[in-house]
Amino acid sequence: MNSISSSVFRTETMTVPGGTETVVRGGRDLFPLLPQALHGVRRIGVLGWGPQGRAQALNLRDSLAGTDVVVSVGLRPGSASVADARRHGFTEEDRTLGDWLEVAATADLVILLIADAALAANHQRIFEVLRPGATIGLSHGFLLGHLRTIGRDFPDAHPVIAVCPKGMGDSVRRLYEQGRSVNGAGINASIAVHADPDRHGTDRALAWSIALGSPYTFATTLRSEYLSDIVGERAILLGAVHGQVEALYRHFRIAGDDAVTAYRRSTETITGPIARTISSSGLAAVRSATGAEDAFDRAYSAAYGPVRDLVAEIYDEVAEGTELRSVILAEQRLATRPMTEISGSPMWSHSAAVHALRASEPVAVDPLTAGLFVATMTAQVDEFAARGHAWSEIVNESVIEAVDSLLPYMHARDVAYMVDNCSRTARLGTRRWGPRFQAAYEQLALPHAGDPADPTLVQGFLDNPAHEALAAAAMLRPTVDISVS
Amino acid sequence: MNSISSSVFRTETMTVPGGTETVVRGGRDLFPLLPQALHGVRRIGVLGWGPQGRAQALNLRDSLAGTDVVVSVGLRPGSASVADARRHGFTEEDRTLGDWLEVAATADLVILLIADAALAANHQRIFEVLRPGATIGLSHGFLLGHLRTIGRDFPDAHPVIAVCPKGMGDSVRRLYEQGRSVNGAGINASIAVHADPDRHGTDRALAWSIALGSPYTFATTLRSEYLSDIVGERAILLGAVHGQVEALYRHFRIAGDDAVTAYRRSTETITGPIARTISSSGLAAVRSATGAEDAFDRAYSAAYGPVRDLVAEIYDEVAEGTELRSVILAEQRLATRPMTEISGSPMWSHSAAVHALRASEPVAVDPLTAGLFVATMTAQVDEFAARGHAWSEIVNESVIEAVDSLLPYMHARDVAYMVDNCSRTARLGTRRWGPRFQAAYEQLALPHAGDPADPTLVQGFLDNPAHEALAAAAMLRPTVDISVS
Repeated sequence: MNSISSSVFRTETMTVPGGTETVVRGGRDLFPLLPQALHGVRRIGVLGWGPQGRAQALNLRDSLAGTDVVVSVGLRPGSASVADARRHGFTEEDRTLGDWLEVAATADLVILLIADAALAANHQRIFEVLRPGATIGLSHGFLLGHLRTIGRDFPDAHPVIAVCPKGMGDSVRRLYEQGRSVNGAGINASIAVHADPDRHGTDRALAWSIALGSPYTFATTLRSEYLSDIVGERAILLGAVHGQVEALYRHFRIAGDDAVTAYRRSTETITGPIARTISSSGLAAVRSATGAEDAFDRAYSAAYGPVRDLVAEIYDEVAEGTELRSVILAEQRLATRPMTEISGSPMWSHSAAVHALRASEPVAVDPLTAGLFVATMTAQVDEFAARGHAWSEIVNESVIEAVDSLLPYMHARDVAYMVDNCSRTARLGTRRWGPRFQAAYEQLALPHAGDPADPTLVQGFLDNPAHEALAAAAMLRPTVDISVS
Repeated sequence: MNSISSSVFRTETMTVPGGTETVVRGGRDLFPLLPQALHGVRRIGVLGWGPQGRAQALNLRDSLAGTDVVVSVGLRPGSASVADARRHGFTEEDRTLGDWLEVAATADLVILLIADAALAANHQRIFEVLRPGATIGLSHGFLLGHLRTIGRDFPDAHPVIAVCPKGMGDSVRRLYEQGRSVNGAGINASIAVHADPDRHGTDRALAWSIALGSPYTFATTLRSEYLSDIVGERAILLGAVHGQVEALYRHFRIAGDDAVTAYRRSTETITGPIARTISSSGLAAVRSATGAEDAFDRAYSAAYGPVRDLVAEIYDEVAEGTELRSVILAEQRLATRPMTEISGSPMWSHSAAVHALRASEPVAVDPLTAGLFVATMTAQVDEFAARGHAWSEIVNESVIEAVDSLLPYMHARDVAYMVDNCSRTARLGTRRWGPRFQAAYEQLALPHAGDPADPTLVQGFLDNPAHEALAAAAMLRPTVDISVS
């Protein structure tokens, strides 16, 4: 699962806890190798123009400029995105913009980046129009989970590969652009080769990943990707962050803080200095950054058990299929009951006031907030390790995607905006699990955050293999500050 | 589904919104008819000694005293309940206490009141030892849901009946005892005849229900009972109450109330005067009792939509089986991850102080709390009506069980104690859905509780058919105050 064999790109061995993984380092110097690695793919069709579709279509086109590989965008009839795709240079005239089924019918690699619900409803129609031997490309494992849930499978005789950037679409594009000046900037990706009838799946996936600008690419399976992706967004990437800031904001307010101070001690601490510290210096550095290690340890000890229980629960629900069945039921209700937004929570009315203080009064790292957050991140790392995920997948899905992609975005907007504007599967998952995390912090962690620290838990954190795995991942790319306009 | 035909008991026609239902009124004067109605059942075996098992065994024995029908209690080997069952007069010597499989093998009616998890694990062993033609008795539809989930069914040629008291075990016993002086006191029950090979299922179920002390008995199906029971405990009976008091307590604290005042305005208001007002005078009376109808209407309008969405979501999850699959997954995790308690939430440390004020300072009905609570109760009523449940089931499962059984119990202990000590399926459900309700109140309802009321929603409440259905149900029994020691 975590070895890669390529006839085109040089693989490297990365030392991870308990062994090694094969990875492939990206870089602009490799772009000339892309056509060869694509093994006969001359038309790439990107279906969908959401944040991920747009980012991937643009990055692929830029990376393949000057070659004979054409990148086209396919949209549904009447799609509101036509104008924006044209504005970005995809046109009907040169056949780089068209109806999704026509684009699917003429491409050698069809990358499915339409929304999950649309994919669930229309995958069969797309499969039916594919050219013989055309490669099916995915960027996460949702479709695999959906096909399992409904008892279907991918069509025979088509390669099925996945390239899964460990960051949201906006980051995939933004860091690619930064990569023009800082070679190595980009969002890491995992690849999975799910069906490989012509044995070129790995090279094609690597080419796609390198063309997206991935600093390094690691291998996984579609199933493993699906599990870590769906669990991760319900836990530390979105759901747990939302639950934590809701719990902490009220906790600080009841303790006497005004609204802006409570916001800064909860949300602002996490999306700002905690995320930056982890990104640049790793998880353990947060503990020192608080300047109050004992308070951090107490909070960490109080939170770790309850959130580990929750991550295990989410993992079970995703692995056994109940989570995806719930998502399908929720999608069906949306026709008559539109999804409500979470931005009505009182905290978010103070976002502007908090953001305005950034220049004049940098926020300190509150040790209570830091202990809760790091405990949650570590609980996810440990649960993924216990379930047998490869270390690259663990640290990318639990740490790097959070601190290099999602948290900076939340810092620029706010947490509620992020949740209300992410993919529908992620939104539904956050609404299901965020409140569970909130309750765990409020009812189980915070009441004990002043109790003596648990030395076994603290030592387990200090000795956690994640530090080594993160350091290995960090060696493969420069740390880049993401500015979100 | 809601008609009853009995060769022994007199049926009555109750007018309900949109039609009539057949019901059977209980009473001690009917006890002499019980042996005849049981049609050949001479040994009743009650398996389990939880609150419901104890209450039913005691009520059945008392009601059948002086007849030739024997009530025995069956317990698992090594059960910690043996001593308590002996203390209550069930003994090995007279064969009214024994091993559960032996009791099951010798009874003509085997009432399965062991915990859901034990039932899920052991139903097959019990089915195998039954006498030919022995009646299987249930008190809720969990086993039906479980058998569906695992693709099994009840054994052939056995009558399967259910008597489902609309209250917790402690109330079933306590109101039965009050019924000695106040004839008519008791907990209503629904009956379902799921398999009826000898055509005596209805009479047996009625006899069992009347022997439990049910003031009136109405008919349902096991499936309908299952749905309303499992949804109800996740919504207004437990989950929504827990979510609401957590949300309101913090809301009042942030608004400046001290802990005791915030507790009184949230929990105490609901479990005390709101429950009593609904029990004695119906739902609409709560609105007047606030003395602030406009504030009530605003809160009601802000909460109704979000909580109706949630009740619909719970209903879907229960009806489609995902909820029960999640319960089974949770049961499996309990072996390595014991269930945590919710009583650590800061509010509950003030229970004693709040209770101490009851005599000297009766709590007022806070209009915000009342509006949120009544909106939630009405949302469940409306969702059940939209899904086709009979009105007796709707008002018993949404209103009467809450105000006559669960809320008085919560008033005597507290909400967290109630949740931490109810059935495991209910506990797991409350933990899953309580936080969702909390989030809906915090993020969607409370931020808009000051907005102008929605006249359509308010009129819909004032004209709600539930008022008529509740009044019809109230005519069948005196209102009894439950004291919980």
